[in-house]
Amino acid sequence: MSILDEFDFIKKIKPNKHHQSSILIKGIGDDAALYSGNKDVEEIVCMDTMVEEVHFSQQTMTPFDIGYKAVAVNISDIAAMGGTPLFYLVSIAVPTKWSEDEVMEIYKGMNAIAEEYKIDLIGGDTVSSKNELVITVTVIGRVKKDKHLLRSNAKPGDIVFVTGYLGDSAAGLNILLKLESLTDINALSDNEKYLISRHQQPTPQVEVGQLLLEFPRIALNDISDGVASEANEIAEDSDVKIIIDYDKLPISSALQAYQHENKQEWILSGGEDFELIGTIDPKYWNSIVKIMNEHGHHVYSVGEVLPGPSEVILKQGTETSTLTKKGYNHFKK
Amino acid sequence: MSILDEFDFIKKIKPNKHHQSSILIKGIGDDAALYSGNKDVEEIVCMDTMVEEVHFSQQTMTPFDIGYKAVAVNISDIAAMGGTPLFYLVSIAVPTKWSEDEVMEIYKGMNAIAEEYKIDLIGGDTVSSKNELVITVTVIGRVKKDKHLLRSNAKPGDIVFVTGYLGDSAAGLNILLKLESLTDINALSDNEKYLISRHQQPTPQVEVGQLLLEFPRIALNDISDGVASEANEIAEDSDVKIIIDYDKLPISSALQAYQHENKQEWILSGGEDFELIGTIDPKYWNSIVKIMNEHGHHVYSVGEVLPGPSEVILKQGTETSTLTKKGYNHFKK
Repeated sequence: MSILDEFDFIKKIKPNKHHQSSILIKGIGDDAALYSGNKDVEEIVCMDTMVEEVHFSQQTMTPFDIGYKAVAVNISDIAAMGGTPLFYLVSIAVPTKWSEDEVMEIYKGMNAIAEEYKIDLIGGDTVSSKNELVITVTVIGRVKKDKHLLRSNAKPGDIVFVTGYLGDSAAGLNILLKLESLTDINALSDNEKYLISRHQQPTPQVEVGQLLLEFPRIALNDISDGVASEANEIAEDSDVKIIIDYDKLPISSALQAYQHENKQEWILSGGEDFELIGTIDPKYWNSIVKIMNEHGHHVYSVGEVLPGPSEVILKQGTETSTLTKKGYNHFKK
Repeated sequence: MSILDEFDFIKKIKPNKHHQSSILIKGIGDDAALYSGNKDVEEIVCMDTMVEEVHFSQQTMTPFDIGYKAVAVNISDIAAMGGTPLFYLVSIAVPTKWSEDEVMEIYKGMNAIAEEYKIDLIGGDTVSSKNELVITVTVIGRVKKDKHLLRSNAKPGDIVFVTGYLGDSAAGLNILLKLESLTDINALSDNEKYLISRHQQPTPQVEVGQLLLEFPRIALNDISDGVASEANEIAEDSDVKIIIDYDKLPISSALQAYQHENKQEWILSGGEDFELIGTIDPKYWNSIVKIMNEHGHHVYSVGEVLPGPSEVILKQGTETSTLTKKGYNHFKK
C-alpha cells in the first residue's frame, strides 16, 4: 500500500500553524472541525472533485500541480461569490500505484496555494482506492452580509465583462498532451510555458471578486467551463439575452502567437481559465476600470445585456450566431 | 456514459423544498452555496469518503444504502461534537458501469436520511471516473457557542459510557459477505436482518449528542473505527488512562445469538456502529441516565478514567490487557 499508516499520514499533513486562528476553534484532530459563528457574514461553501485520467494525468500535471489546482478551482468558486476563502477540507482516495511521497507532493501543492490565499486545512478523509486517485476539496469562505454576487443579478443595459485572458488553459493542455514527459517543458518557449502554467496552476481572482462587492448588483460567475457556458448560466439565471463581441475577448500574446485550428473553440469553450465573467451597470464602468487598475487587475468590456428570453449571441465582425452552452459536460460524448 | 447530461442530472437531484430555508440563501445553482452567519453558534464541518470495493460493493450495499450511509457517517461526526446537522454537499465520481437510475437511487438514499435529520443538499460535484464509484459527502452543522464536545475533555474519575450496541455492523457485514445476492436477505432470520441493517443504514446519534450538551465537560467521539480505536483517541487527546470493562459493553440480543469466533474482535474493533463513546463526571451519572431514558435513548457505563499517561486497558473478568488502537486503518495490511 502506498500510505503505510493513515494516522501517521494525518499527523504529517496537519498544519503546524493557522492563518485563521482568530476564528478557528478546532481543526484536524477531532470528529469534525469547528470555527466561530459571525452574524455579519454569509457563510459560503463549495466542493469540487478531480479524477485521475479524467481531469488530470501524470502526463499533464505533477502531483504538486494536482494539489494546487484542486484547491484553486474551489477558491475560484468562492471568488465568484465575492467571498473570502478561509478554510479547506481534503478527501483523497489513493490507489497503491501512488507512493506516499507523491501524495505528500499533492499536499505540498495544496499548501502552497493555501499560503497564498491564507486558508487553513481543517479536515477531510484519507482512504484507499483500487485504480484512480480521486481528490475532492471543500472550501469554506465568507462574504459580508447581503453583499454576495449571484448569477441572477444581470439586467438589460448592463455591460458584460471578463477579468482576464481566455483560452490559455486549453492551449496549455494541448501543448502538454503532445509532450513525451513533463520534463520536456524545460525545452519549450516562454510563451508555451506560460500557457502550460495557466493550465497547471490557475489563479483564482479572489481580490477582483472582493473589489466588485463595492458596486451594486454585479452578476458574477467563474470561468471553469468556458465563457460560452458561463455566459449562458448568467443569461438563464437572470432571464436576459447576452451579446458577446468575439473581437473584444482578451487574448494573451502567448495564445496569439500559438498557431492551432481549435483556438476559437478554446477561447469560447475551453474552460479552466478561472477568470471571472460578470455584468455591471454602465454608469459604474469607469470607476470599476479605475479601481481594478489601481489594484493591478483588469476588466475587459466584452459585450452587453439585452432583455430576454435568455440566450447568448456571439457577434464576430458583422456576423452573429447563437452561442450554446458548449462548456465541458462530464457525461456527454 | 452512465449519466447522459451533467446539467440535466443536477436539475434532477436539486431539492424542490428546503428544511433550513430560514438560513439558506442559495443552494444548488450558483458557484457556491450561501447561508446566513450567526454569532451565537460555532460552525461545524466534516467530510467523509466511501469508495467502491473498499467501503462497499454491490454485494453488501444497494445504491440506496450507499447514499444513506455516506450521509449517515458524516452526520455521526456532527453528533459527536454535540452539533445539529444543517446542510450537506455531495461529490460523486461515477464510472460508466453505473446506470443513471442506480446513481439516482444513491441520491434517494441520501434524501431519505436528509429527510429524517432535516438537512438540505446545497452543492457538490458530479464527475465521471474510469473504474470505481467514489462518493464524498461534506456535512455542515452548528453547535451552541462554547458548548462543543471534544475528545480532549476527559478527566480522571470520569465514567466512560457508550450509547448503544457494539459489534452489530461488523456482524452484519460478515453475514452479507456470505450471501450470493442482496435479495437473499429476505430469507434470513430477523436477528440477521437487524445486524445487516446496522451495517447498511446506521443511525447517527444526533439527539443523544445534543442532550449531552446540557452537562459540563463531556468528552465525546463517534464509534466509526471501533471502541478500541475511539477510546484510545480520547485517552491520547485528554492524556488519561481509560479502563474498559469488557463485560459491561452492551451487546444486542441479535449479536448474542449469532455464533462466530471473531465476535469479540467485532465488538472491540469492528467499527461502523456509529454509536457514541464519551466520558462524564460521575456526579452527573444519575441525571444523564434519567434524561436519556426520558428521550428513549440509553447510556451504558462501560469503564472509568484514571490519570495518564494515555493508554486504554481492557478488563475482562480478572484479566487485564492493553487495548491498542486496532480500528480499521486504511493503508495497513
